[in-house]
Amino acid sequence: MKAAVVPEVGATWELRDVPVPQPGPGQVLIRVRASGLCHNDLWLTDGHFPFPAFDPVVVGHEAAGDVAAVGPGVTRLKVGDRVGATWVQGTCGTCDYCKLNLPLTGQSGMNCAAPVMSGLTVPGHHAEYITVLADSTVLLPDEVSYVQAAPVLCAGYTSWSALRAADPKPHERVAVLGIGGLGHLALQFSRACGFDTVAITRSPDKHDLARELGAATVVADGAELAAAGGADVILVTGTSYEAATDALQGLRPHGRLVLATIDPEGSFSIGPTSPVWAQRQQIIGATHNGLEHLTEALRLVAEGKVDPIVEVFPKERIAEAVALAAKGEVRFRAVVTY
Amino acid sequence: MKAAVVPEVGATWELRDVPVPQPGPGQVLIRVRASGLCHNDLWLTDGHFPFPAFDPVVVGHEAAGDVAAVGPGVTRLKVGDRVGATWVQGTCGTCDYCKLNLPLTGQSGMNCAAPVMSGLTVPGHHAEYITVLADSTVLLPDEVSYVQAAPVLCAGYTSWSALRAADPKPHERVAVLGIGGLGHLALQFSRACGFDTVAITRSPDKHDLARELGAATVVADGAELAAAGGADVILVTGTSYEAATDALQGLRPHGRLVLATIDPEGSFSIGPTSPVWAQRQQIIGATHNGLEHLTEALRLVAEGKVDPIVEVFPKERIAEAVALAAKGEVRFRAVVTY
Amino acid sequence: MKAAVVPEVGATWELRDVPVPQPGPGQVLIRVRASGLCHNDLWLTDGHFPFPAFDPVVVGHEAAGDVAAVGPGVTRLKVGDRVGATWVQGTCGTCDYCKLNLPLTGQSGMNCAAPVMSGLTVPGHHAEYITVLADSTVLLPDEVSYVQAAPVLCAGYTSWSALRAADPKPHERVAVLGIGGLGHLALQFSRACGFDTVAITRSPDKHDLARELGAATVVADGAELAAAGGADVILVTGTSYEAATDALQGLRPHGRLVLATIDPEGSFSIGPTSPVWAQRQQIIGATHNGLEHLTEALRLVAEGKVDPIVEVFPKERIAEAVALAAKGEVRFRAVVTY
Amino acid sequence: MKAAVVPEVGATWELRDVPVPQPGPGQVLIRVRASGLCHNDLWLTDGHFPFPAFDPVVVGHEAAGDVAAVGPGVTRLKVGDRVGATWVQGTCGTCDYCKLNLPLTGQSGMNCAAPVMSGLTVPGHHAEYITVLADSTVLLPDEVSYVQAAPVLCAGYTSWSALRAADPKPHERVAVLGIGGLGHLALQFSRACGFDTVAITRSPDKHDLARELGAATVVADGAELAAAGGADVILVTGTSYEAATDALQGLRPHGRLVLATIDPEGSFSIGPTSPVWAQRQQIIGATHNGLEHLTEALRLVAEGKVDPIVEVFPKERIAEAVALAAKGEVRFRAVVTY
Repeated sequence: MKAAVVPEVGATWELRDVPVPQPGPGQVLIRVRASGLCHNDLWLTDGHFPFPAFDPVVVGHEAAGDVAAVGPGVTRLKVGDRVGATWVQGTCGTCDYCKLNLPLTGQSGMNCAAPVMSGLTVPGHHAEYITVLADSTVLLPDEVSYVQAAPVLCAGYTSWSALRAADPKPHERVAVLGIGGLGHLALQFSRACGFDTVAITRSPDKHDLARELGAATVVADGAELAAAGGADVILVTGTSYEAATDALQGLRPHGRLVLATIDPEGSFSIGPTSPVWAQRQQIIGATHNGLEHLTEALRLVAEGKVDPIVEVFPKERIAEAVALAAKGEVRFRAVVTY
Repeated sequence: MKAAVVPEVGATWELRDVPVPQPGPGQVLIRVRASGLCHNDLWLTDGHFPFPAFDPVVVGHEAAGDVAAVGPGVTRLKVGDRVGATWVQGTCGTCDYCKLNLPLTGQSGMNCAAPVMSGLTVPGHHAEYITVLADSTVLLPDEVSYVQAAPVLCAGYTSWSALRAADPKPHERVAVLGIGGLGHLALQFSRACGFDTVAITRSPDKHDLARELGAATVVADGAELAAAGGADVILVTGTSYEAATDALQGLRPHGRLVLATIDPEGSFSIGPTSPVWAQRQQIIGATHNGLEHLTEALRLVAEGKVDPIVEVFPKERIAEAVALAAKGEVRFRAVVTY
Repeated sequence: MKAAVVPEVGATWELRDVPVPQPGPGQVLIRVRASGLCHNDLWLTDGHFPFPAFDPVVVGHEAAGDVAAVGPGVTRLKVGDRVGATWVQGTCGTCDYCKLNLPLTGQSGMNCAAPVMSGLTVPGHHAEYITVLADSTVLLPDEVSYVQAAPVLCAGYTSWSALRAADPKPHERVAVLGIGGLGHLALQFSRACGFDTVAITRSPDKHDLARELGAATVVADGAELAAAGGADVILVTGTSYEAATDALQGLRPHGRLVLATIDPEGSFSIGPTSPVWAQRQQIIGATHNGLEHLTEALRLVAEGKVDPIVEVFPKERIAEAVALAAKGEVRFRAVVTY
Repeated sequence: MKAAVVPEVGATWELRDVPVPQPGPGQVLIRVRASGLCHNDLWLTDGHFPFPAFDPVVVGHEAAGDVAAVGPGVTRLKVGDRVGATWVQGTCGTCDYCKLNLPLTGQSGMNCAAPVMSGLTVPGHHAEYITVLADSTVLLPDEVSYVQAAPVLCAGYTSWSALRAADPKPHERVAVLGIGGLGHLALQFSRACGFDTVAITRSPDKHDLARELGAATVVADGAELAAAGGADVILVTGTSYEAATDALQGLRPHGRLVLATIDPEGSFSIGPTSPVWAQRQQIIGATHNGLEHLTEALRLVAEGKVDPIVEVFPKERIAEAVALAAKGEVRFRAVVTY
């Protein structure tokens, strides 16, 4: 089969022939149809994060496809099921975190000392066939295509988890900071659920699109958000904690700002003049918060209320897809078909 | 090996020789050391619930023991681990409930159309060796003996889940209705966590014990509870919904009454004169609410703050244990050693 | 001034001349423009509840109007402000409940041993002028007319508080039981906030209207609701606890049924076969849950997302309004102008 | 009467004769018996915050005493009642925040554009007689002395609100950062409610006392806290956001760090390597979160579970009290008797 291999740190991805893996106990073999490019894949490639130890290095964690075979003990899935695979497949079960027996699925598995993470600790999803632990997959609704599903499996999962973590009340106002792979979905999720939605973006060329995606209001920064009446919820979907710090000034009393991403370089700061204290505001960390949230997100796509905007690349053009994504020139998610 | 078999509906349990089962993928073989008798086992025996379809019929779902072998794909456990097994082992993964992808562990698995339930849909825990799905087990803290652990695996799990479901605030008052297998643990859990604790029991002979177990106050019913100032939380641990209805009158404004059990015959009622509406009270259903709660409960036992009161029977006396439990003459849990 | 007086239990209301009241400390005098007829007014009239002790008996608690004068110490309001008055004006401050110092506004004041309640312990709102405690009023948004505001001040306040008490998640499905004074607003509130909304009504003639008001689905009872996939939230807005009990069978796992009303005769029942326990469902009492909720409700009316359906009667026709309301022939709220 | 006057910015406090104020509508006159010195009083004195505009300048907001007279319209209190007065007395009722109609009491009133704040916008509590809005007071339990009550009215109120805002689960571990006016009470509150409690302090001389006050464990900083197993809740009761940032590394997954104070100079920072995101942690702002919380705190003092450590100064030694407090030499609260 073909797999997209990262030859070494900083190298261009290459499509190579590799053996089809076999599903072990609890695993399924998936014939991948579409696989999204997450920013994390780029950080792994350029050495921002430690380079994976397995060989060959295949990254990726947004695969949608069909079950091609089931390993021993798998009862939840059968051959032919349309499924999506996720980032955190499993946990070690024996570290201090695992011994708490918190629900295993979802990225809280990252707190495990030795998690099974696609493209990070085990081979990832940019390949024609992959094996993953069955319990880390979700069934795809019939109405959702593979290409639509792929970016939901990480970007959409993150965005929706962030909104859910904010626990918005039905009448509240929701602002989305950053209109990219995550943010363009966050806007749609917020609008789909009836919230008065605000987009925060410094890119004037994204204003029209932000409105189409669900923003009733578009502002440039926290000061403009405050001037526009503020928001009860701010979802930080970009990777700049500096921008998140700026946005905080537009948070209403009792409001919640959700950090749904990591900033590899900057800091989020609550300064000496911040009213976080007196206004009883909250800063909430969120990530993939459990497969039930991913299921909810896919349901909203199935109902036609949310539709990822992607650029589709056949696997032969994967190097080009990576190059464009690295330059930030893909709107809003590169999805590779296999 | 020996297993305690229920020959037919209404028959006396018999210790019989049966083959040792083999662990399949995802399963572990457990050498059972102690196994608790739950009221449910008696209801299954006397035909209150449908008689299990497997043969021979072995019931039970409170087993503590050692891992004797691990099946294919099991990484969380290894031979020699001290573990506890639970009631709901797994779910089908394909019914409407399972498709929601809610966390699988815990008794919400009962909502599955075809759950794997120990002693109900698959052989239970009253045997020298059992096989169970590894993901449904918990590691036992070193400080907790097998005999101590057994009643925590269902009775304690239920009691603690009920307290957690009530979401008590640090200063609140907690009342426990029914001082039996569940209630005698609920009292201890409540006291261990610093709550002003009330026992509600119509048995005068249990007053002293209730105080020893943690009750600062003991009352006979809802009217007495109201007279004693009421409670913010009422945990219904007995099986009488009629008594729960009576207790409701002692619930404070904004209070929560938790139904942690099933009453096979009676009804819980909010009558026309009830202040539930104006006092913004809540009635909350709870059961085994997730393995993290079972872990928390075992931790409190390990710390010496909670200690189940049990009567221990060697496996040869299992019929006697069942007979005594059926008559309500066991204080407070019969634990059988294998 | 004119006031609508209930001469005695069971008697026809009469418009009489009475003195204009004077605002005491903390009170405002309101020139009432519109006042809604709540079912409670009828129950007081026909003797279902104890007849008020003040003389003459003026009931009502849904008044919208202008501030005509302010009493000593009132700083929050000034002459000319457009305001709405509510049912629970204040509490005694000295009973056991008050000593808890829970937020005073909202109907949790009913838990006070001696609350100040419009039309119940002090004269009500069916008059040209009324005095009420300033802290129990809300400013009306400019966009909301007096006639629109009146039914929101009790019926809408109750409906919205019920929805808020259910704490619906953004993607959940909300069912409204009973399409009357409260329910026709609950449907609109639910739709306005983006929820997939179901109406439960046994009146076939209300089906079309229920859809217009926001119901995507209309069912007759709990069995039909279950067949239609169930709901995560059921708002009981009618006064039949028997119907609420029936609706419970359509509540999804982890769902919440909100009792927002009182049934003077029937009981709500969780029977022996109920899955409330295993499904971790909740029954939640709700009422006027705080003025912030009333403010939120009025805001949704101001935004044009919710519009009460009323029949307007000039004060001279008040007896007719009462008679029609008593026969259930008003859709959906009689509002009297003064 | 005598009042403690701050003559000008940076000047020494002086006891002066001033007229006894008269209670207006909604106000009570309190004969102050004990009044605590809050750090805020010192910041106002030394010009850290804008100097009050009223004349003479009397600061303070922790007064306990007896009602000496009630103004028009006051029904909640009567002459002779033992009461405590608080910082935020009232709000304007007309600003954007007030129009939300959120519960008025508690320091969320600080979000009001023109709040009535003792010692800040209206004369404070360091005097023999003061007038305050009756609705901002609480009745003191008989078991609580004036001197005990005074520090609870701000320091204790803040500490307890912080613990409540963290919403600790019954089995969780609570750490208190800073063992001063607030922290020495936070430790006691935490212990009183049964939590495994940790003190974080860089002062070795406070270790023994911290243990006496309730800490089972004492650590110096966030690294030591992490090494000691971390905490589910960290209450920041000191005024150093730098120390709070350091403590964050000891926060467990899913943990909550509560900022209960303001740092006039430093910043709280979530850095690029912070696991807040993946661990789903929360940073929560808290302050005086509602009079019901103050009532709860006083109840714990009345039950003998919490006892403020104070140094008592007769009013004639107020300048000395201020000087010692400014040097941080008072353990842990200076209370002045009048």
